[in-house]
Amino acid sequence: MDKTARFNPRIETLSLPPVPAVQAWAAHYDGAHGPLIDLSQAVPGYPPHPDLLVWLGEAAADPATASYGAIQGDAGLRRALADHMGDLYRAALQPDHLHLTSGCNQAFIVAAMAVAGAGDTIALTNPCYFNHETSLAMLGIGVDYITCRQENGFVPTIGDIEAAIGPATRAIALVSPNNPTGAIYPDALLEQAFDLCRKRGIWLILDETYRDFLPDGAQRPHGLFEKQGWEDTLIQLYSFSKSYCIPGHRLGSVAAGRETVGQIVKIMDNLQICAPRPPQGPVTRAIGAHGDWREANRALITQRAQVLRDTLVGVAGWELASVGAYFAFLAHPFENETSRQVAQRLATDFGVVTIPGGFFGEGLERYLRVAFANVSRETLQLLGERLRRA
Amino acid sequence: MDKTARFNPRIETLSLPPVPAVQAWAAHYDGAHGPLIDLSQAVPGYPPHPDLLVWLGEAAADPATASYGAIQGDAGLRRALADHMGDLYRAALQPDHLHLTSGCNQAFIVAAMAVAGAGDTIALTNPCYFNHETSLAMLGIGVDYITCRQENGFVPTIGDIEAAIGPATRAIALVSPNNPTGAIYPDALLEQAFDLCRKRGIWLILDETYRDFLPDGAQRPHGLFEKQGWEDTLIQLYSFSKSYCIPGHRLGSVAAGRETVGQIVKIMDNLQICAPRPPQGPVTRAIGAHGDWREANRALITQRAQVLRDTLVGVAGWELASVGAYFAFLAHPFENETSRQVAQRLATDFGVVTIPGGFFGEGLERYLRVAFANVSRETLQLLGERLRRA
Repeated sequence: MDKTARFNPRIETLSLPPVPAVQAWAAHYDGAHGPLIDLSQAVPGYPPHPDLLVWLGEAAADPATASYGAIQGDAGLRRALADHMGDLYRAALQPDHLHLTSGCNQAFIVAAMAVAGAGDTIALTNPCYFNHETSLAMLGIGVDYITCRQENGFVPTIGDIEAAIGPATRAIALVSPNNPTGAIYPDALLEQAFDLCRKRGIWLILDETYRDFLPDGAQRPHGLFEKQGWEDTLIQLYSFSKSYCIPGHRLGSVAAGRETVGQIVKIMDNLQICAPRPPQGPVTRAIGAHGDWREANRALITQRAQVLRDTLVGVAGWELASVGAYFAFLAHPFENETSRQVAQRLATDFGVVTIPGGFFGEGLERYLRVAFANVSRETLQLLGERLRRA
Repeated sequence: MDKTARFNPRIETLSLPPVPAVQAWAAHYDGAHGPLIDLSQAVPGYPPHPDLLVWLGEAAADPATASYGAIQGDAGLRRALADHMGDLYRAALQPDHLHLTSGCNQAFIVAAMAVAGAGDTIALTNPCYFNHETSLAMLGIGVDYITCRQENGFVPTIGDIEAAIGPATRAIALVSPNNPTGAIYPDALLEQAFDLCRKRGIWLILDETYRDFLPDGAQRPHGLFEKQGWEDTLIQLYSFSKSYCIPGHRLGSVAAGRETVGQIVKIMDNLQICAPRPPQGPVTRAIGAHGDWREANRALITQRAQVLRDTLVGVAGWELASVGAYFAFLAHPFENETSRQVAQRLATDFGVVTIPGGFFGEGLERYLRVAFANVSRETLQLLGERLRRA
């Protein structure tokens, strides 16, 4: 008599990936109100720099990139990234502070695994980026939730952060600029969070996937890399997917103390030996060569935030609860519907694809996440009228 | 008073990646005995097919591959792989039985996570592929060891396998052709293992990274995909790294039941959204176009196994304990030295780079792993004389 093999209950109970579910709704839209306005997945609405495409092609055709590389990532890219980050943060970063990964989701996983295991907890904000929550859940790592309030622009206070820390907390994970709200955390708050982590002997994981889209391009994102003891406290995450428009190539990075990088090397060797090699050389060149192009994209996306504000003026009942870099959190007027119901109806009946607030945490049924950076000014201008009809 | 943040003890106590450690020894070799003979990492000693390189270049330069793809992998590659595997195993495989990954290490991780979590165990052979052991350790999954004996060619008996199963065992993970011993598990044993798994309600994870290097090219690797209930029992893993010579591009696959693939989709979305996209189209073409090229490489590597046998004839004290596809397990004559001491001395003093048997499990100090597929016939012929001097 055979028995049935079971799945890992932590995986079996995991939520389905939200983006494909939401995009499936859009497939039912019949075009009655005009073109689809896809504000769901955070993907750049423009192609990579043409030179970068040429370099990517050359690199992938080179037999040298077909072989395994260093687990930590190619030395050239780590050198270029250390120099670039050194300028940006005005800090002394070295190549051995950096580890390359297959995108920033993986950077988060390796950071979380380096500091926590099953039975430990990591503090996330509510709302949080859903993949952070499910990544921890599948590893058996619990979540402590940090309350974020609309009246504070969804930026937590240091009191909110401290209140979330429990006896099993191994790290605080923050995302700034934030996914899903777009909120930009002030430098002072990040410094307070850093100091709190040091006081409590826990790690600060800071996901800066959207760093290159800050409204003020001249702004230093924060001063944490200059803080005393940063190597023992901070684990910073970054993605090349958004800024360089190459999510399909899967490249991200971790910046951390050398000891932390040493732990991550062990994890990455098991996880996939090394990040994909072909994009590493081309991105090395693009860091220095395409600063102006990235700045132009940043400015463009900042303008789109204004277009979003403008198109929503006078749309009764809809409220821009939060808008910052890349994302906005939109409050809808339908009190008797869940965010999922509203988002599904908007997608199927009105061709406006967003992600329900409820996918980002508890008590968020009023909201929809809008990845406004994805679409052109012209498309975005259609949004107000579309919501008015809805 | 600040406190020190700690690492996850499961990661802190993890062994360092073996391949870089071993290759570091080789850097001390002064060339006194001739060229370096690097038999450490399992990497093809020849470049990818020239057409594949052209296609990889074209695909990476295409803005379409720069965007996110389906989590499960591009439909075209899953179709081509299903057809190819269908022919090879004479089984009815469909694209939705397949999930693409960033190489086969990642395929093992997602398979293990789908069926086991912290506190569960998975049975591995002793010796085993070291990354399987450390992958489970970092996830908090315990290991049940299956004894493999030199007198059986390092192929376990079904009794050995059954003896390893304990109350927490969620899966048996086998590697055939085997890493590190090269042993090819007979179809009959794999069927027995499959039946045992069904009887006990656990999974059979079968890593077939080296499948395309079986000594008899016409051989069907096994008949498990034809077995009743395979979708509820078997999780098969494969790598494009060795057969297509593209480890740097990071591409592997899982073949499993649709429900299992559904679990893996959730894991992969968190782990890295999707496998790298640029190589997926080119590999789709190469599956059909380069069968003869892969067959020629298989034949070449099979010849190298014979060259290895020949060069060791009459080298006193050294014994070929096991030789099969890609790898051999070599018994050394130094009874008072650990395998690590012998391997280090061979590398630094004699320019022969191998991996110590002790890296693959307990009680293996007599052995060294030799990845003979890596090096040319001419280089391999130097090995016997080099060992004689040692």
